[in-house]
Amino acid sequence: MKRKIYLEMHTLAEARNKWRRAVQDRRTAVEELPVISALGRVLARPVTARLSVPHYHGAAMDGYAVKASDTFGASAVRPKHLTIGQQAFAVDTGDPLPQGTDAVIMIEHVDPVDAHTLEIRSAAFPWQHVRKVGEDIVAGELLLPQQHRLRPADLGALLAAGVSTVSVYAKPRVWIQPTGSELVPAQDAAKAAPGQIVEFNGTVIAAMVTQEGGLALLQAGIADDPSTLRASMQQAAASEADLIIFNAGSSAGSEDYTASLVQDLGTLLVHGVTMMPGKPVLLGILEGKPFVGLPGYPVSAIVAFEQFVRPLLYWMQGLAEPGWTTVEAEMGRKMPSKLGLEEFLRVVVGRVQDRLVAMPLQRGAGVITSLVRADGLVQIPQESEGINEGEAVRVRLLRAEEDLEHTLVMIGSHDNTVDVMASELKRVDSRLHLSSSNVGSLGGLLALKRGQAHCAGAHLLDTATGDYNRSYVERHLQGIPVRLVQLVRRRQGLVVAPGNPKKIQSVHDLFRPDVRFVNRQTGSGTRILLDYELAKIGRSPEGLQGYDWEEYTHMAVAVNVLSGSADCGMAIYAAAKALGLDFVPVCEERYDLVVPEACWNDAKIQALLRVIVSERFRRLVEAMGGYDPSHSGTIVGIWNGAAWREADDPRGD
Amino acid sequence: MKRKIYLEMHTLAEARNKWRRAVQDRRTAVEELPVISALGRVLARPVTARLSVPHYHGAAMDGYAVKASDTFGASAVRPKHLTIGQQAFAVDTGDPLPQGTDAVIMIEHVDPVDAHTLEIRSAAFPWQHVRKVGEDIVAGELLLPQQHRLRPADLGALLAAGVSTVSVYAKPRVWIQPTGSELVPAQDAAKAAPGQIVEFNGTVIAAMVTQEGGLALLQAGIADDPSTLRASMQQAAASEADLIIFNAGSSAGSEDYTASLVQDLGTLLVHGVTMMPGKPVLLGILEGKPFVGLPGYPVSAIVAFEQFVRPLLYWMQGLAEPGWTTVEAEMGRKMPSKLGLEEFLRVVVGRVQDRLVAMPLQRGAGVITSLVRADGLVQIPQESEGINEGEAVRVRLLRAEEDLEHTLVMIGSHDNTVDVMASELKRVDSRLHLSSSNVGSLGGLLALKRGQAHCAGAHLLDTATGDYNRSYVERHLQGIPVRLVQLVRRRQGLVVAPGNPKKIQSVHDLFRPDVRFVNRQTGSGTRILLDYELAKIGRSPEGLQGYDWEEYTHMAVAVNVLSGSADCGMAIYAAAKALGLDFVPVCEERYDLVVPEACWNDAKIQALLRVIVSERFRRLVEAMGGYDPSHSGTIVGIWNGAAWREADDPRGD
Repeated sequence: MKRKIYLEMHTLAEARNKWRRAVQDRRTAVEELPVISALGRVLARPVTARLSVPHYHGAAMDGYAVKASDTFGASAVRPKHLTIGQQAFAVDTGDPLPQGTDAVIMIEHVDPVDAHTLEIRSAAFPWQHVRKVGEDIVAGELLLPQQHRLRPADLGALLAAGVSTVSVYAKPRVWIQPTGSELVPAQDAAKAAPGQIVEFNGTVIAAMVTQEGGLALLQAGIADDPSTLRASMQQAAASEADLIIFNAGSSAGSEDYTASLVQDLGTLLVHGVTMMPGKPVLLGILEGKPFVGLPGYPVSAIVAFEQFVRPLLYWMQGLAEPGWTTVEAEMGRKMPSKLGLEEFLRVVVGRVQDRLVAMPLQRGAGVITSLVRADGLVQIPQESEGINEGEAVRVRLLRAEEDLEHTLVMIGSHDNTVDVMASELKRVDSRLHLSSSNVGSLGGLLALKRGQAHCAGAHLLDTATGDYNRSYVERHLQGIPVRLVQLVRRRQGLVVAPGNPKKIQSVHDLFRPDVRFVNRQTGSGTRILLDYELAKIGRSPEGLQGYDWEEYTHMAVAVNVLSGSADCGMAIYAAAKALGLDFVPVCEERYDLVVPEACWNDAKIQALLRVIVSERFRRLVEAMGGYDPSHSGTIVGIWNGAAWREADDPRGD
Repeated sequence: MKRKIYLEMHTLAEARNKWRRAVQDRRTAVEELPVISALGRVLARPVTARLSVPHYHGAAMDGYAVKASDTFGASAVRPKHLTIGQQAFAVDTGDPLPQGTDAVIMIEHVDPVDAHTLEIRSAAFPWQHVRKVGEDIVAGELLLPQQHRLRPADLGALLAAGVSTVSVYAKPRVWIQPTGSELVPAQDAAKAAPGQIVEFNGTVIAAMVTQEGGLALLQAGIADDPSTLRASMQQAAASEADLIIFNAGSSAGSEDYTASLVQDLGTLLVHGVTMMPGKPVLLGILEGKPFVGLPGYPVSAIVAFEQFVRPLLYWMQGLAEPGWTTVEAEMGRKMPSKLGLEEFLRVVVGRVQDRLVAMPLQRGAGVITSLVRADGLVQIPQESEGINEGEAVRVRLLRAEEDLEHTLVMIGSHDNTVDVMASELKRVDSRLHLSSSNVGSLGGLLALKRGQAHCAGAHLLDTATGDYNRSYVERHLQGIPVRLVQLVRRRQGLVVAPGNPKKIQSVHDLFRPDVRFVNRQTGSGTRILLDYELAKIGRSPEGLQGYDWEEYTHMAVAVNVLSGSADCGMAIYAAAKALGLDFVPVCEERYDLVVPEACWNDAKIQALLRVIVSERFRRLVEAMGGYDPSHSGTIVGIWNGAAWREADDPRGD
């Protein structure tokens, strides 16, 4: 089997420079378009006014046109009379000035004396309230320079100046070729059988092309064998496309075929860039046309697109590549990064107590949802070994900057009701965005301690008292006042395959040699619960197969049972129900929201509190199964940083 | 004649509140769209994953799949051997893990011993480099909440999760009805005869609707008499449109017809808002549909659109109205404003010596080019009497914020070569934007004194020495080092009608009773030149008809001659040539760029200097006529704030 090892990797900066030198001066064809269809297009030539605007001296107000010199001397104590039809002529805004007049007096400033006479109490100055010829545009003047992107008002100015067509650069036509033998077309996504991969990269790339002003020519997927690839590359090169994109196939060596074909049919400029994700990007010229081979992993493809395709779409229309909106934020967690690799880290960002905090998301290049959840990207330079907790980083935003003010950051334990809260918040106010990060209950309390979240979800059992969360708050949040708000009570238990084939009845069975368990991570409430249940029956984890296999969410545990990787795992009932699995109840527990006092009056927290006491929320949560939301929203503890307040609501527990 | 006086004007805040209460909860229809066509659309319902992604445990790297426990104990000093095909299986990224394996070792970290054996020097941990089932998305999880606008990566996540169609809000359909009897259709703009008005507002409104995500249904113009208006309103109300816009006709009373028709056919909510521009806006409900009457003046129509139509286009899709990008800038000039009117002031904005400076443009609501030239809008609250020079203002940007860094602010005298510079700068670098403000030569020097411009254009004649600009710099720029750079030498003279019907030969003729002159404003170099020429022949301005009639540009002077409003004016040859007028030369003068030392190394100034020494610039300027650009770019004086440097280049003069 041939094994690809990159021999001539370029750094991101080198690759960008090489690419810029090779293709920056390319332009699309120039086309003549009616102005009425030219919104967003870029002028290929400067445009001068054909007509002056306006063509005549016109009234700029409703009122009376007069000769200014006739009005001189008028004042409040010595008003003047003007004869209508001889010295004063009624005009509306836009009417031409009658011969001999050079000023307009507003209707509000005249007093009719009789049918033929007006009285005025102040003089008009020459050209008062008159729009003079050419006041707006004079024929022959430069109206718009070349390389200007047309906005709505520009279209108006062009038409007003008698310009009805303009020369603009054609939209760059982008050939997009997905490759790979096992692809299911995007439109059949719902029919994808297990093991088949939905071809969605092509749709994402086409959407990015559209968004940046290009014309996407998305092709049907092809097999990624060398002869099919060669024929398809030749077809693309012979087409009307200005730029060719191939999206790597997933079969072994497909990238190498592409590289050698580009070398064969044109020039290979770059193969492999020291960036992550996006390393296997390929840049070249194919029979005279710019060619980009995008990696197969979706996040890699998107990052590489932004680095190499996006600028070209602008250059081809004579524009500079626009910058990104960035903000400075504080890194919420230490993130080591490999020296020699330019890393693009996906983060969620929110403003917590006046500081912007960025929390890293999953790094996998295949995790397309990480881009859906991310609020921004942090670029870690290749000469850096990573970012320390609390270090200032520049975040390139994937949302509007103003959205950050409406992002509610929740860090801590995972629960399926978080989805319901996120969706309900958005329904109440479309600007509200719940950004959640699953680090376990304890991780959530520590995030609150560092001031990195508006609230945390926690279900930490005190094995000594049977109470939830209080003793953990006492231990970890000294000096940090918080309120505990009950979100739900929920059933925890053992998730097993449908029909419970291994007949698992209790935690005793976890030690059977034929039972493979899947666990939750250290610090999660569910892990603590398991340990508590084991202790209750006097067992240590010794001999429990899969105790070290850690997953971060209830759903991930359930999926491993569904796929047969594990026979059983501990999770909430809702996770089992969602995937059609069976469930062996172990206990009921309380899941609280921990809200720092400093965030209590935050509008987003208040909106969240309104959501969780609503009838609609309770109905939706009950429908998921295994939840008791009857006390949702009850304050079950007020911690002043050193002690609990006496009068805590007793209904909470 | 009926005269409209607003009786029940609303403040902007009142009108916006009333409108919001009346229409905020309206939604367009919900439609089911293929994901591949749903970019930019807004979800009407939350979407959960149908499939987990991925479906199988797959390799996350190219390398060998192994059972982690087989590798335990391997180290650099004690390497381990694995048998290929039994303990180690070659996998490429994305391949499923062979039965019994649970980790992947990267190809870079294995050493082949022979065809059947690999050596490893470190142990693999379980699930190393493995993409586990559901790692990305688990079936049943919330993928996207409702009221979310779909971005490219979202489409990928939807398809990957087996979702091929989504329920989205339909784009709001907007009926746009231009009214007015004398309108020329936009597509015939080039054929507009004098006195005819090109219908361009409809195109601008349609472009704005498109830009904000609506579907513009632009109608042909109609006469603005009451019966035509009524029929057309009924047609609009019966159509599939979600929102109806009528653009006011220009005939007397058209607005009042509209108001009473809305009252008749539905509900009139607001007629007249205390804002400028945009006062005559009209809001109502027409047979159940939101109706907006936009004013006839283009700037008024745009401002009113932004206040009332734009939010509705978002509300109808369940979104909040997005905010505007704003920056804080320093007002470059005192701007009084009427108490009780919310004013929207157009400004140019640039960063000069680390301060953002906003200079106001023309106020006229008819001046569509002011919106083309403007970089931003300043809103002056109705309880304010205006803004002082130097006062901090919030500017809502009409360009990307980063563009401000590339805006070269030139304030001072007007010359037609400024157009050439602007267009050439943009050609060289599309980000460069020359923002020029015509306040006369002296005004330009004063702007430099206040640090408000990167350079000023000046042609101030020292009547004592015959030299240009130097004595004015000495007088006005004490303590402010600048360089004088010759832009061009140019011919000044008397612009007269074609064929010179009044036989004007010199400034002597300006005193003839049959000659009406048009002058330039006080402080302009041309005004000083005229006074100098008059002094040379021993005359004062006494008896010169039109001496007090002031225009701000050469082209404005020429246009007044073209239209017959004046017989003659003083201007540069290029202005006469541009409009096909005749020209009586009076003298040649030097026109300099005055550049503060503090701006000299600014990249924009350096780009400008490269432009004006280019062959291309000289050719373009020579083609305009009346210019001698042979010394363009020569430094003709270096002023250190107190004295001129000795070695000034002698070629300059």
